[in-house]
Amino acid sequence: MSSELTSKVDREVRKKAAEVLKTKFLRLIEQVKEGQPPVMEIPKRTLANTVYDEKRKLLLLGEEKLKRSFIDLNEAKRFMQTTLMGSIIYEALINDEYPTIRDLYYRGKHSIVLKSPEGKVYEENTWDEQKESDSVIVDIEVFTSLLREDMLILSKEKGKVVGDMRIRSGNDVIDLSKMGHGAYSIEPTPDLIDFVEVNAQFVLVVEKDAVFQQLHRAGFWKKYNCILVTSAGQPDRATRRFVRRLRDELNLPVYILTDADPYGWYIYSVFRIGSINLSYESERLATPDAKFLGVSMGDIFGTKNKKPYLTEKERNSFIIKAKDFDIKRAQEIRNYSWFKTKSWQEEIDLFLQKKAKLEIEAMASKGLKFLAFQYIPDKIQKGDYIS
Amino acid sequence: MSSELTSKVDREVRKKAAEVLKTKFLRLIEQVKEGQPPVMEIPKRTLANTVYDEKRKLLLLGEEKLKRSFIDLNEAKRFMQTTLMGSIIYEALINDEYPTIRDLYYRGKHSIVLKSPEGKVYEENTWDEQKESDSVIVDIEVFTSLLREDMLILSKEKGKVVGDMRIRSGNDVIDLSKMGHGAYSIEPTPDLIDFVEVNAQFVLVVEKDAVFQQLHRAGFWKKYNCILVTSAGQPDRATRRFVRRLRDELNLPVYILTDADPYGWYIYSVFRIGSINLSYESERLATPDAKFLGVSMGDIFGTKNKKPYLTEKERNSFIIKAKDFDIKRAQEIRNYSWFKTKSWQEEIDLFLQKKAKLEIEAMASKGLKFLAFQYIPDKIQKGDYIS
Repeated sequence: MSSELTSKVDREVRKKAAEVLKTKFLRLIEQVKEGQPPVMEIPKRTLANTVYDEKRKLLLLGEEKLKRSFIDLNEAKRFMQTTLMGSIIYEALINDEYPTIRDLYYRGKHSIVLKSPEGKVYEENTWDEQKESDSVIVDIEVFTSLLREDMLILSKEKGKVVGDMRIRSGNDVIDLSKMGHGAYSIEPTPDLIDFVEVNAQFVLVVEKDAVFQQLHRAGFWKKYNCILVTSAGQPDRATRRFVRRLRDELNLPVYILTDADPYGWYIYSVFRIGSINLSYESERLATPDAKFLGVSMGDIFGTKNKKPYLTEKERNSFIIKAKDFDIKRAQEIRNYSWFKTKSWQEEIDLFLQKKAKLEIEAMASKGLKFLAFQYIPDKIQKGDYIS
Repeated sequence: MSSELTSKVDREVRKKAAEVLKTKFLRLIEQVKEGQPPVMEIPKRTLANTVYDEKRKLLLLGEEKLKRSFIDLNEAKRFMQTTLMGSIIYEALINDEYPTIRDLYYRGKHSIVLKSPEGKVYEENTWDEQKESDSVIVDIEVFTSLLREDMLILSKEKGKVVGDMRIRSGNDVIDLSKMGHGAYSIEPTPDLIDFVEVNAQFVLVVEKDAVFQQLHRAGFWKKYNCILVTSAGQPDRATRRFVRRLRDELNLPVYILTDADPYGWYIYSVFRIGSINLSYESERLATPDAKFLGVSMGDIFGTKNKKPYLTEKERNSFIIKAKDFDIKRAQEIRNYSWFKTKSWQEEIDLFLQKKAKLEIEAMASKGLKFLAFQYIPDKIQKGDYIS
């Protein structure tokens, strides 16, 4: 692609990634030249090798590594898949491509036909399902320490942001306080964003896009001088990385607002700790001191120290009876190391006792003014969050 | 909310909507004063009253109306629900609120307790499920001819756009050619957008967000001078209205790019004709001359007039066997009036014969340069689309 069509930052990133990939994979050829069987050492991505680092409060990959050898019959196919994917990604990088994990699957999908010296014909597919090629991409990420974003592998993105800040993305400087009624849709490679100028006191991350629209439209971020983000449900990698960078580089406290139910807690937990699947990524994606602002069970039912935000009549109309899978999920979450704080155990126990959940929209139904200009700022000001 | 927090255009819109609602519902009180039973006349939203207008090529509501009377036992509850929702929306409008359909459900959800003259106590819920309150909102839309967007009822939005155009939204002018690697997320009320300045030859709507990211990043819209939009799957109301306005007001041709399968055709059809559920809205949401750019069966297998874009080897690796529900869906779609053109019948017949589908990512896997700088422009230039 001609250079006026793509951004300078992309051209630098692809050069660097291509160099790292080349070095890593050339080592295999050196091994052959040295008369050794080619072997890749790759950190193990197993549950057993996923550890919760108490001190850093992060889910991380442990020290264990696996050896993937070309001459091991059990490993040969996976070895082939890894080198195939490595070469496809490398080709994409040097050819100014922007693949997605779905098209990488197609790029590599074909049958390898082999004839043995005896004339027998063997046929083997490189891979059949995308989960195979996806898994190989993750292997390459941990093998090279390049995240897929570093290799300009793109993906769909749901995260949005507004607030009083200027960022540089690609060749442009964008003023996120001048988005009108719309919002800025976060790019799939948030590490390439520069924070040019920021005027904000905190970050509010809202699970639901519709509630984000309401708060944005009501001028919440202008009044309280915050960066307003939505993950539009389960957060994707880009939204998580963007929030983490706001925390780290701008030193802004991060508050998460979700429904009052185990699914909402899980979303919070993904922002804060990372997910088991992506533990090799937690170090860059997780925001360990993100705070769960609400909606909490205490907001609904009150605690010995505070009055509830709902009247009894509102509770009767608004709360939803927890389903069996909610209860089961809550019991699981209760046992996660990172939920073993006093405040979280109390929150989960209150849920298990009341067997009730609440949607954030029920709070909005008491008036957007209540939600935007009373409930949220009140809780932030009092430090009434769970962490 | 204080006026510096919200936009001027919103304040004007809410004033107008409140006035219309008031006039419509005050008529009921006048009826009572005139000694008549209060009755609302509401266009029927039944399948039987949904007609396909051959000439305008739109799914529209027919002429039939229903009478919702307070003193008809079968209608009394629905009458109550309609006036209740009318008053809630009116209150939201005059109180500078921005409700969502979900919080409108909560706003109205409660039990009405009645004591008969004999002292017997009756209890009745206003509504139990959101589908009840949603249906009442639609009744109010057709009753007042105000769409929910006109009443500043917000919703989640998935649509994104980039391109060489300046728009006014709220208090801001936004340059959609300066979004960096990110994009502009369309507001839930796209009728409030002003097109300030547009420099584009056509509109390309991409079903998949990840493919949008790829085309954007590769500079597709810069090179071909187009407005690039994604619906991120099934299009929401705002994306459909935004695309329709680009067609109508800027006189730009609209091309739709989806997977080659019945689901992709359906997405195209929603953009072009509207959906049966929202037929009362087609007049404002549908883009009757939107063109299905691809991926078409002819692109995969070739036709008597053109060579396929895939080699036989690529076809063998890329095509996916159609499932039973794909076949069934294709047979249904084949019978829709608006698919009864020669080119659509040929397309569907080729699908039914080959029983094969293809994802757009398979085209991207031949190289993003192939997709962005050969396949798409080639087809547009040759007029190789289905309509």
